[in-house]
Amino acid sequence: MALIVQKYGGTSVNGPERVKNVARRVVNTRRAGNEVVVIVSAPGDMTDDLIAMAHEISPNPPAREMDMLLATGEQTSIALLAMAIYELGEPVISLTGPQVGILTDNVHTKARILEVSCDRLRRELAEGKIVIVAGFQGMTCDNEITTLGRGGSDTTAVAVAAALKADVCQIYTDVDGVYTADPRVVPAARKLPVISYDEMLELASLGAQVLQPRSVEFGKLNHVVLEVRSSFNDNEGTLVKEVTELEKKMVVSGVAGDRNVARIALHDVPDRPGIAKALFVALARESINVDMIVQSAMRDGINDIAFTVGRDDLRKAVEVTERVRAEIGASKVTYNDRVAKVSIVGAGMITNPGVAADMFACLAEEGINIHMISTSEIKVSCIIDEEYLTRAMQALHSRFGLDKE
Amino acid sequence: MALIVQKYGGTSVNGPERVKNVARRVVNTRRAGNEVVVIVSAPGDMTDDLIAMAHEISPNPPAREMDMLLATGEQTSIALLAMAIYELGEPVISLTGPQVGILTDNVHTKARILEVSCDRLRRELAEGKIVIVAGFQGMTCDNEITTLGRGGSDTTAVAVAAALKADVCQIYTDVDGVYTADPRVVPAARKLPVISYDEMLELASLGAQVLQPRSVEFGKLNHVVLEVRSSFNDNEGTLVKEVTELEKKMVVSGVAGDRNVARIALHDVPDRPGIAKALFVALARESINVDMIVQSAMRDGINDIAFTVGRDDLRKAVEVTERVRAEIGASKVTYNDRVAKVSIVGAGMITNPGVAADMFACLAEEGINIHMISTSEIKVSCIIDEEYLTRAMQALHSRFGLDKE
Repeated sequence: MALIVQKYGGTSVNGPERVKNVARRVVNTRRAGNEVVVIVSAPGDMTDDLIAMAHEISPNPPAREMDMLLATGEQTSIALLAMAIYELGEPVISLTGPQVGILTDNVHTKARILEVSCDRLRRELAEGKIVIVAGFQGMTCDNEITTLGRGGSDTTAVAVAAALKADVCQIYTDVDGVYTADPRVVPAARKLPVISYDEMLELASLGAQVLQPRSVEFGKLNHVVLEVRSSFNDNEGTLVKEVTELEKKMVVSGVAGDRNVARIALHDVPDRPGIAKALFVALARESINVDMIVQSAMRDGINDIAFTVGRDDLRKAVEVTERVRAEIGASKVTYNDRVAKVSIVGAGMITNPGVAADMFACLAEEGINIHMISTSEIKVSCIIDEEYLTRAMQALHSRFGLDKE
Repeated sequence: MALIVQKYGGTSVNGPERVKNVARRVVNTRRAGNEVVVIVSAPGDMTDDLIAMAHEISPNPPAREMDMLLATGEQTSIALLAMAIYELGEPVISLTGPQVGILTDNVHTKARILEVSCDRLRRELAEGKIVIVAGFQGMTCDNEITTLGRGGSDTTAVAVAAALKADVCQIYTDVDGVYTADPRVVPAARKLPVISYDEMLELASLGAQVLQPRSVEFGKLNHVVLEVRSSFNDNEGTLVKEVTELEKKMVVSGVAGDRNVARIALHDVPDRPGIAKALFVALARESINVDMIVQSAMRDGINDIAFTVGRDDLRKAVEVTERVRAEIGASKVTYNDRVAKVSIVGAGMITNPGVAADMFACLAEEGINIHMISTSEIKVSCIIDEEYLTRAMQALHSRFGLDKE
């Protein structure tokens, strides 16, 4: 008998038919002889609707009361799912985050889980019940209701799985696993049976919107085996776990593309200490997330600094950069929002030199110019013109042996 | 400085403008130098919407999960009201029933309050905050969420007022007080400045839908002064409290009418012990609420039994009565759903004999036939043909000196 934690997102429980569908899956897992704990998100757009209601009352509502309001979303889901499972004849109980004892810090609207108490969960499981837990929410030691911020239900699922030492934490989404590339862009993409936490982290932050990076990190830290599955079919999913050296058969596991990229360059920057700091502190103050940064020595004592931001932030970022340019006496600011980022990810890269060179060669053969490069131990990313993104992804996917037979 | 508990119903917090309106009233009460605790219901039809959602999943959902679901309604209200008060610049905090420590028994969907803990409430008040409490909900000693059933928010308000020894518990509704009769039926009706708990109880159960009988009983037991007010104007309301003998100036305080009445009669019942029991046990098993019961000896050894039920229950009640008729050998069952109940209520009746006779005389003078009579210490009710209800109410209102000058 395995102990399985399942997490269903908001689209999976949007409306009575979908709730019943999830109930059937949960009951099937139980009847196959497993203990089951289920984490659910708020139905569909409920969280967004609640936020809109709050903003009709106050442009800037207190975070504590926001959490009080938002926590009703998951409470609605757990009650309805428990009813649907009860209707199928299985013993079941729903529990809010506070009822489970999901202890968080007191940073309302983006609290962090400090501890998950197992007492209540184990007691209900011991009574033979399926246990439904509200995702996204917890309680401070002062009995205050908190929420975990975006992707919080994934984090709840992984934290509960870690606390219970579950055999697997299945994350149900609208895709049935992690692919070597987005199949809409690269038709030859294959589903990966296994991927390492680190690769998943890189893919997650590169725009493969399957798992929240925070929950993958949490899984890695707590050795929780994750499985990404679809709630709309019965296909085998993708396991996310620690992959041993021997298992690293593929040098590159996936190719990712991201069009939400704009590149800004500050030209002819005097080569003095503190210049980069001035620029990036100013950007951080405006809550602008900077992704890649490249500084290149062009001539003696003069640099160019180039960096990328999300396109939503472009205008504000250009304004800030222009202000800094005037202060430090750089020559000009240029920007380009017709660029994209293409990346290859693979844990095998560490032990296979020449992968980056291979990537550059592949892009060169396709006649694609590279504007910026950034590397980590298991990833190489290049900024290219957006128009070439699809061609680049397909070429790299083929080059690194990822196309399906 | 007074400690005032205010309760606002669902219509008062339906939509952002109404929430802001309630916030202004609460803040005004606070700024007038009072400590304020506010109890709110779920917005508008939210409770009914949630029940409908549950029934799309299960025809008969488990009561515990129903409570889990329904409790989200009031949690939504308290968060939004707290945001609106915060927006007006007053310190405020919202608390769920469990957070306050409203301890109930474990009869889900109609739990009874066992105890209200004052610790958290007093601590927040001492910090100068307006405290918003979710009505209708509580927690068992096992940490389970419960709801109190219909009118539960009124009960929460009275229980919180009793626990805090509040100076007054103001119940805000869509009428601005308790009237000597429904002003839509009796245009001469006057608002009562004061009414006793017992009179209010009789009026409440006679169809004057102002206060839930349970909350009035609770107020009486705990000596909580209630005040019924409108949330849409600033008129003085009606105080509900213990009225001393000296204050009982009026013999009759109010006239009530109820059209939701159907009369059933079982004819030629053999006069044996256990017949009435057989009938009313059978009706109770079908959860049919019986109001008035009259048994009359017609001839030697043969009785008629007549009783009234709500019109929704008529068909089922006739079926049950027909079944019992066959078992016990009575002659026939008749029924009439074109009847109504007219009642006079007044604490002064106890010490003023002849009030009932006065009532019958008044109805006779109007040419209105009486089908059934039922009396208590402070109430006389008559079943009459429905077509005469308005005339009866107006005549009685005038007869007992209730018309406004």
